[in-house]
Amino acid sequence: GLRRLPFARLGSGDAAFFESLMPGRACSNPEELKSFNVDWLKSVRGCSELLLKPKTAAEVSQVLRYCHERNLAVSPQGGNTGLVGGSVPVFDEIILSTALMNQIISFDPVSGILVCQAGCILEKLNEYLEERGFIMPLDLGAKGSCHIGGNVATNAGGLRLLRYGSLRGTVLGLEVVLADGTVLDCLASLRKDNTGYDLKQLFIGSEGTLGVITAVSILCPQKPKAVNLAFLGCQDFSRVQETFTTCRAMLGEILSAFEFMDEKCMELVEKHLGLSNPVRGSPFYVLIETSGSNSSHDEEKLNSFLEQAMTSGLVTDGTVAVDDKKIKALWSLRERITEALTRDGCVYKYDISLPVGKLYDLVTDTRARLGQSAKNVVGYGHLGDGNLHLNITAESYSHSLLDAIEPFVYEWTARYNGSISAEHGLGFKKKQFIQYSKPNEAIFLMQRFKAMLDPKGILNPYKTLPPSPSADTIA
Amino acid sequence: GLRRLPFARLGSGDAAFFESLMPGRACSNPEELKSFNVDWLKSVRGCSELLLKPKTAAEVSQVLRYCHERNLAVSPQGGNTGLVGGSVPVFDEIILSTALMNQIISFDPVSGILVCQAGCILEKLNEYLEERGFIMPLDLGAKGSCHIGGNVATNAGGLRLLRYGSLRGTVLGLEVVLADGTVLDCLASLRKDNTGYDLKQLFIGSEGTLGVITAVSILCPQKPKAVNLAFLGCQDFSRVQETFTTCRAMLGEILSAFEFMDEKCMELVEKHLGLSNPVRGSPFYVLIETSGSNSSHDEEKLNSFLEQAMTSGLVTDGTVAVDDKKIKALWSLRERITEALTRDGCVYKYDISLPVGKLYDLVTDTRARLGQSAKNVVGYGHLGDGNLHLNITAESYSHSLLDAIEPFVYEWTARYNGSISAEHGLGFKKKQFIQYSKPNEAIFLMQRFKAMLDPKGILNPYKTLPPSPSADTIA
Repeated sequence: GLRRLPFARLGSGDAAFFESLMPGRACSNPEELKSFNVDWLKSVRGCSELLLKPKTAAEVSQVLRYCHERNLAVSPQGGNTGLVGGSVPVFDEIILSTALMNQIISFDPVSGILVCQAGCILEKLNEYLEERGFIMPLDLGAKGSCHIGGNVATNAGGLRLLRYGSLRGTVLGLEVVLADGTVLDCLASLRKDNTGYDLKQLFIGSEGTLGVITAVSILCPQKPKAVNLAFLGCQDFSRVQETFTTCRAMLGEILSAFEFMDEKCMELVEKHLGLSNPVRGSPFYVLIETSGSNSSHDEEKLNSFLEQAMTSGLVTDGTVAVDDKKIKALWSLRERITEALTRDGCVYKYDISLPVGKLYDLVTDTRARLGQSAKNVVGYGHLGDGNLHLNITAESYSHSLLDAIEPFVYEWTARYNGSISAEHGLGFKKKQFIQYSKPNEAIFLMQRFKAMLDPKGILNPYKTLPPSPSADTIA
Repeated sequence: GLRRLPFARLGSGDAAFFESLMPGRACSNPEELKSFNVDWLKSVRGCSELLLKPKTAAEVSQVLRYCHERNLAVSPQGGNTGLVGGSVPVFDEIILSTALMNQIISFDPVSGILVCQAGCILEKLNEYLEERGFIMPLDLGAKGSCHIGGNVATNAGGLRLLRYGSLRGTVLGLEVVLADGTVLDCLASLRKDNTGYDLKQLFIGSEGTLGVITAVSILCPQKPKAVNLAFLGCQDFSRVQETFTTCRAMLGEILSAFEFMDEKCMELVEKHLGLSNPVRGSPFYVLIETSGSNSSHDEEKLNSFLEQAMTSGLVTDGTVAVDDKKIKALWSLRERITEALTRDGCVYKYDISLPVGKLYDLVTDTRARLGQSAKNVVGYGHLGDGNLHLNITAESYSHSLLDAIEPFVYEWTARYNGSISAEHGLGFKKKQFIQYSKPNEAIFLMQRFKAMLDPKGILNPYKTLPPSPSADTIA
């Protein structure tokens, strides 16, 4: 029932303008556009007829100034790995890809501050840093294709947040092009700067609706000298939670990840991806990573913790990895769950923040509610951050199944003051549910920010915020 | 030359309204108002005739709704420990104190999330947490009187930032009352929440100019089981810097503070406060703190580092503290420098972010420039964060000395892309220098945010931002 907003339509004059602005980088070939028009989950599909690949902020500025003037809508796109349909056009928005903005600008090994363009791929940045004794402060399953600009625009969380904190603390500066083409250069390389309002924060997590991020300055931690991984089985969720508090107390500053998954997740990665589970027969599995500067100290801490966890019955079985290959194999079990789920059928995805104690109750309640109408109901996620990924699969899409899930899941989450999007954002698919996690006064203020920064609404329309009453009338 | 903006003046009807709203907590006694009208440095003095002490966000909302309606200006005040004149009225603004908003609302020992009212004193919160095995993620010299709401409103940095990051990462939620009395309840207790724009960030560091923070939700780290302190002497600043990189590599995840001070600072704390220096005869001193979960591991790491630092000649002398009393005594040498400076005469204070390698050059250059016209030119600060506190003392205030310092210091800082306010904010005293650290596009956007959120400009006027051209005309 969504209607296209009254943006201008692309004409031949527009195509000529963009071709002259960036020769060979303004693509209108439908074949080439296909993969940019659809999201990774293949759940949202636009019909853009133009893909632009600028190389500089100046080019982005010229593009947006022109689009603003002409009232042409734009869908900014990074690695297109988002899970809420935020990175693809909904109708015929011009796709503005950061793919060719992939230059590292500087790295300072004293401060650990990296400055780079928005289109750099996360994994490549991490490799670059590792050679210099540092790492990126974030890591996620999509690292091989996601762009740092997209990570920042969506405030990506991921696997290292427990240790290095969110991008709100590690991003030190941004260069952003506003809807009217103004370049906002807040690309500072300073750990501390209290001169006026911290404008960059507004763009972190705004999903391309307030401006296009063209460069990022980010504080990178040192590469840990020692990494250990423990993959453990627990008999129930209360033991998972107690394992976490015990582990946090005993591992302290070297704890770098605490992930969990239920046995259904494990079944799916075994069945669909052929991975093998080294620890059998547990209803729950946890993956604990330590990162530190002294391997013998870290192993001693980890061993004391494991002994305590085994003797007290928190953990029934487990395996430990120190070498890179086994570490990678164990991480795959957790990181590839998303992939296994897409092979299980049609997936209904929920990314929920809740108090740790309530985290798994939502899975149990959803499973009981759906009964035989779902194929699988699974729960996994970043337990240390209170972040549950609840996923439901079915043989095919069914409206009645969706009706059984929503708004049930959102109402359940709101009842415990949780967030209906912990790290995925709202994008196209979740924007109408924002009121389950934010009061009306906040949503209204967000709409005012949007109206102020992008008065014509050309940047990533139909995303993140529900339309404001006035915009509704206009449309 | 500053003129009072055309706000309304307090009338007897106003006094009656506030007295009926909060009986006994609307004070107009000039004696009682004195200490609220002047800042800690006694450098900015207002002439407010009314001090309000609300206890709840609802009361703050009623106050602001009334002031907004009546066009009465308001100066929000926490512990009044700011160093840039941001926390006191400039003319006759009503002082809105958070002193009675001092209730702890909740603490969850699983997540480590504390929720409290804005007027809680930092040190009291830390004591409360320590009894429960946690600590506040920030610590600063003013802890005995500063309020957490003021800390957040000014984005306070302090001594633990190196380890636990800035408030932009640790503050999880805020309750804020806007200029028109709207209560914005974004007081979430979730580590992750990506539902729409992160509005709370705009209020962090806005120095009370965009809204009044009434409650804070903050993520607190576990109390470290072991704390060690090393106080060391270095022969030159390049050795200070190398000590830092060596120490960061060897102490890794247990490093929790790296502070430095020059010998002039040490002379002043000895002379004015009678403290004694355990390490004599060095041009520079560094204070290194470790915090960890295993005391023998931490001591081993610290000892390896100290051995390396001594044998390689980075450090010439030093002392180490493990027990609480000696740790406190050593910290005093660093924390009480500000106090010693105020006793040395008239102080010109600068709080600068710079690349670590350039940090002390600014002190040397300023000292050379001022020669005999200054009494003392000293440098100290949070070296690990690239944050220098440059202070100049003189027997009395002199306009010609100020002219020799400014804009020299700001121009010098801008040349190396530093920040002219790392953590103190801009307040009343630094707002006109914002352009040394922020481009015009950013300043203009800040002014638009201010105009949108506080169209009448009643919240903390004359602070943080230079007046926008249009406001100038109105004034």
